Amino acid sequence: MQRKFYLEDIPLDEAWAAFRAALDEAGLWRPMEAETVPLSEANGRVTAAAVWARFSSPHYHSSAMDGYAVRAEDTVGATEGAPLTFALSDTMSTGVGISELVTHHSSLVTRRAQAVNTGHPLPAWANAVIMVENVQPVTLPDGRDGIEIRAAVPPWHHVRSMGEDMVATELVLPANHRLRPVDLGALAGSGHASVSVYRRPRVAVIPTGSELVAVEDGEPMPGQIIEYNSLVLAAQVDSWGGVAFRLPIVPDDFEAIRDAVSRATADYDLILLNAGSSAGSEDYTAHVVEALGTLLVHGVAVRPGHPVVLGITNEEGASPLATPIIGVPGYPVSAALTGEIFVEPLLARWQGQQPHQPATVQGTLTRKIVSHTGDEDYVRVVVGRVGANHTVTPISRGAGVITSLVRADGIVRVPRFSEGEDAGATVTVHLYREPDELEHSIVVIGSHDLTLDLMAQFLAARHEGLRLTSANVGSLGGMVALRRGEAHLAGSHLLDTETGEYNLSYIHRYLPGQEIMLVTLAGREQGWMVPPGNPKGLRDWADAARPDVRVVNRQRGAGTRVLLDYELGKLGIDPTDVLGYDHEEYTHLAVAAAVMSGAADAGLGIRAAARALKLDFVPLANEAYELVIPRVHYESDLLRPLLELLRDDEFQAAVAAMPGYDVRGMGDARLIVT
Amino acid sequence: MQRKFYLEDIPLDEAWAAFRAALDEAGLWRPMEAETVPLSEANGRVTAAAVWARFSSPHYHSSAMDGYAVRAEDTVGATEGAPLTFALSDTMSTGVGISELVTHHSSLVTRRAQAVNTGHPLPAWANAVIMVENVQPVTLPDGRDGIEIRAAVPPWHHVRSMGEDMVATELVLPANHRLRPVDLGALAGSGHASVSVYRRPRVAVIPTGSELVAVEDGEPMPGQIIEYNSLVLAAQVDSWGGVAFRLPIVPDDFEAIRDAVSRATADYDLILLNAGSSAGSEDYTAHVVEALGTLLVHGVAVRPGHPVVLGITNEEGASPLATPIIGVPGYPVSAALTGEIFVEPLLARWQGQQPHQPATVQGTLTRKIVSHTGDEDYVRVVVGRVGANHTVTPISRGAGVITSLVRADGIVRVPRFSEGEDAGATVTVHLYREPDELEHSIVVIGSHDLTLDLMAQFLAARHEGLRLTSANVGSLGGMVALRRGEAHLAGSHLLDTETGEYNLSYIHRYLPGQEIMLVTLAGREQGWMVPPGNPKGLRDWADAARPDVRVVNRQRGAGTRVLLDYELGKLGIDPTDVLGYDHEEYTHLAVAAAVMSGAADAGLGIRAAARALKLDFVPLANEAYELVIPRVHYESDLLRPLLELLRDDEFQAAVAAMPGYDVRGMGDARLIVT
Repeated sequence: MQRKFYLEDIPLDEAWAAFRAALDEAGLWRPMEAETVPLSEANGRVTAAAVWARFSSPHYHSSAMDGYAVRAEDTVGATEGAPLTFALSDTMSTGVGISELVTHHSSLVTRRAQAVNTGHPLPAWANAVIMVENVQPVTLPDGRDGIEIRAAVPPWHHVRSMGEDMVATELVLPANHRLRPVDLGALAGSGHASVSVYRRPRVAVIPTGSELVAVEDGEPMPGQIIEYNSLVLAAQVDSWGGVAFRLPIVPDDFEAIRDAVSRATADYDLILLNAGSSAGSEDYTAHVVEALGTLLVHGVAVRPGHPVVLGITNEEGASPLATPIIGVPGYPVSAALTGEIFVEPLLARWQGQQPHQPATVQGTLTRKIVSHTGDEDYVRVVVGRVGANHTVTPISRGAGVITSLVRADGIVRVPRFSEGEDAGATVTVHLYREPDELEHSIVVIGSHDLTLDLMAQFLAARHEGLRLTSANVGSLGGMVALRRGEAHLAGSHLLDTETGEYNLSYIHRYLPGQEIMLVTLAGREQGWMVPPGNPKGLRDWADAARPDVRVVNRQRGAGTRVLLDYELGKLGIDPTDVLGYDHEEYTHLAVAAAVMSGAADAGLGIRAAARALKLDFVPLANEAYELVIPRVHYESDLLRPLLELLRDDEFQAAVAAMPGYDVRGMGDARLIVT
Repeated sequence: MQRKFYLEDIPLDEAWAAFRAALDEAGLWRPMEAETVPLSEANGRVTAAAVWARFSSPHYHSSAMDGYAVRAEDTVGATEGAPLTFALSDTMSTGVGISELVTHHSSLVTRRAQAVNTGHPLPAWANAVIMVENVQPVTLPDGRDGIEIRAAVPPWHHVRSMGEDMVATELVLPANHRLRPVDLGALAGSGHASVSVYRRPRVAVIPTGSELVAVEDGEPMPGQIIEYNSLVLAAQVDSWGGVAFRLPIVPDDFEAIRDAVSRATADYDLILLNAGSSAGSEDYTAHVVEALGTLLVHGVAVRPGHPVVLGITNEEGASPLATPIIGVPGYPVSAALTGEIFVEPLLARWQGQQPHQPATVQGTLTRKIVSHTGDEDYVRVVVGRVGANHTVTPISRGAGVITSLVRADGIVRVPRFSEGEDAGATVTVHLYREPDELEHSIVVIGSHDLTLDLMAQFLAARHEGLRLTSANVGSLGGMVALRRGEAHLAGSHLLDTETGEYNLSYIHRYLPGQEIMLVTLAGREQGWMVPPGNPKGLRDWADAARPDVRVVNRQRGAGTRVLLDYELGKLGIDPTDVLGYDHEEYTHLAVAAAVMSGAADAGLGIRAAARALKLDFVPLANEAYELVIPRVHYESDLLRPLLELLRDDEFQAAVAAMPGYDVRGMGDARLIVT
């Protein structure tokens, strides 16, 4: 720890160039050495050298049909009216090393035929096969068995000639070819029982951090963090052709980490050190790399992922002489993206392959992306296929939110020095999914309800390949999304404060000139979610304004917030008099979590969310939660399974089992022409 | 063997419907039962049930930055001109279960701060974090350590609130979801150390056939066939989520096969019996299925693949009660396609997944496809990306030619009752490759030369991802392909019989109005390839017409055939006087193979092909083998590596090492404006 480190901001291509140059110098920027594996273990491996046919396939002339081997010359002249007769050889040609030759007789029946099955070798004297269906068994004048044919055949008819598939010495497969099942057949058929492939690189994943506990060690205490980056990185490595080894967690201690890395250099081709790659007081990765070799890069201008360390060891007398080290940031999204950006290309190179190029689609951005100008930005997005258009919605969550990667359909890359992209811009998405998966995704944007989770689960379980993707932007946000053609449907519970009706007036206002189906999902109870025992004794709406009550609120545009504002208005309460009114969360469960954690004393939400987190509940209102569906989608094949679900006893029972839900009328639909 | 079987011709969808109905009735048309696996073994597996968060992530409010935890309310009023001072708590908050609460003092410094690192829990009294970069360390009047801040922060600033990623009870992943690396992180973060996934189906592959020898048993004798379908089928099964077991080869004996299948039904979920699925005298599969259960389908109207058997066992007292059996045809292309058509969808269903949908491209057919009207035809094709267009060239090889699948870029499906497709038609190709691989393929159509194999090997070894695909259609065929824009370049050695020059006059005739680069590849020797010892004593061109010499010829349009015709013409020999003139092969090696097998006494070809198959060679002529390259391709990035290769010492040495090759002038180019 002689010197202090600061994070740099090196452009991605420069960082890669420095890493590659160092690997090159150490003789490590090339495929792994070769090893020979039996064909039965070779699927998915990559050929380390070109493979040439050892022998021909077929390695003899063979019959392509069940039938009779003949000399084509003998069949000339055969017609329906003038069939020709052939004498049968005694045995079927299944033997080995047949070399008999016939001399040309001129007796009555010099023509000779021999029964052959598909794959049998052709007798040496024959050069064609007649199918069994096209001959007639006869007895010859001399009493021998024979056949009669009624059409001539050309030479080599129904014969698989030697080398038809592969001729000995021919190129079967080039080097750097990833072996597929059929390739194994070609290798075997041309005389190979094994194949030379690149060795799989061995990759050590070393988690560091005194606060980490292993996944297997059960429930963590506050301040402890479940270590799962090593699971993600190891699975990535395995997917990319390496063999990953998760080493034990090392506490935040320079010597301990240095020793763990130093030991690992002897056994592994690459070391992923996670985390400690930033520049804080307990970030030792850069120091460790410096102690064991050369620190090449500390900080790359990519977000998420910025504090990446790239280095290479060159310890005195070590074997191998040099081992690359990648210091992977600790935030899970940063860690996974660092895998994609730095680990995958290196493993591809080590396997003689180009990195996998994800499929891309063009789509329309539904929300502005604001980008950090100094960095290349990897923005996680959800892609919806609604009508002919692909809509691209950024997931604006932090680098600590692994579910943002789980939910992402792909990545939009915003280059350095760009300030971002405006809503409506056409952007390119690098997909995490097959493009056709997007065709089977029902896009729900709008209010959040626990029923949507249940719906996603039922649809996935009953209809393989069908996905329900939901974005929780509140009821009003759902109306806007429908207007822009960004969603197939929206969940909504917007109270019209004039009429006391739900949703209707909003549909007329936000979706003019359309045919909309308004479908009942469920009735549900809204009320105060409070800590167990209701310590502050909340009873009614007016409690929101008590000076000793800190609430947590829903975001602007949420139906629940509209309800709160409506009730506060009726009581003449000014929102600025409500403590915590500006503390916003995006889902019922997030509000419940804020109450449970003590960050707030109460939050308005549904009974099921309170029950889920074992909070108490003070009921205040019943409301209608409905699905707003443009008629064109309502009648589409895509949505049929979802609409069927609303009439399904098992699904209705599952919803009714959630506290505070009323499933009467579920699936009832009204057509609204606006 | 009570009854005789005949092959049926059942449409694919009907065959599948019968199979599915029988599976359904036996309770087998549903995902496998669940098993619990640790997360470290779960990558690629499929969730058998929805997974809900066991606890929230983060499970406590934590700092999102290295800095100081404060109460946001205490920071109100801090500005550059009027900084506020905070007293530091003694210890960094790394502990567990902090629950201290402060009362509100009014002394000089009641404001309190505590150092926190990223990920540390927020003290219970704090609700915001100030970054370490934005504070100034100070000493307070009473001697305590403190910090000074110059800007207010809002509540929850730089705080990851409890449940930001996942709230306990929330849906983490639905059922039927194939787990990816990041999913493992989300599962671990929400409190799961293991996950319930569908069991992998166990699939037995049973090869049958007395003529079969195992891959491991070395060189086969004539009449013996190397058994490799089981390798291909097993690798397919493993790729599709099953676990394959290759059982020993069973000879063609009804009882032996029946007993092997009957034994396997106890241990495996699916049995692939290969081959014996046709209706020949040694085809026992249908009989065996009938003996052990129900024969559902025998013969499907799909080519290649026609003689498929579908059945299900229902043996008295067996456990399980029923096991599906697929009788897979013996020809390797039929076997691999049967895997794709019947095995993949079943394994997908058993894993709760839709079968993988291959990517498709539209392209222009370069040759007519003639289809068997009764069957759905799976035509293997090569796809070239030349300019803006995708060209689609059928590979017209038999079901026994596994290399046709190895070389295929995809499949064109011609429906039943269609007679095929005309050249120039737009067809849809179901790709075996990623679409972007097609962008990195150099398409060579024309004359065959062994140098092209070497070139393919060198390019693949030096440029990962770059492929050279060659179609051997003869020199004239290459000119035609260039004219149609189907190839990037053509190999050609067409002798102009008027001028004695190579290629020039043909380029003017076939490629008018273009800029063409004519590039020297190599000079080579043409001559008679004859069996070792030259038993018929061939010496010159005139020997072609000897009545005791059977030749094998090249196809129409091949430069070698043009040469033969030219020399025969000079000698006044009529081709009809040449025995075997109509026996055509498409490559030098195929001609050599015909001579080696005894099918012919001699064939015209290059010295290297004769040497490769250990034949003798009677030299007759030297010729120029050149590359014909439209200038637009010559100057493209795609072809640069190929042109560089022609100047490469190692490549030149490899070509020169082949017998009969002269590499002087390799890479020299002339521009020809036609």
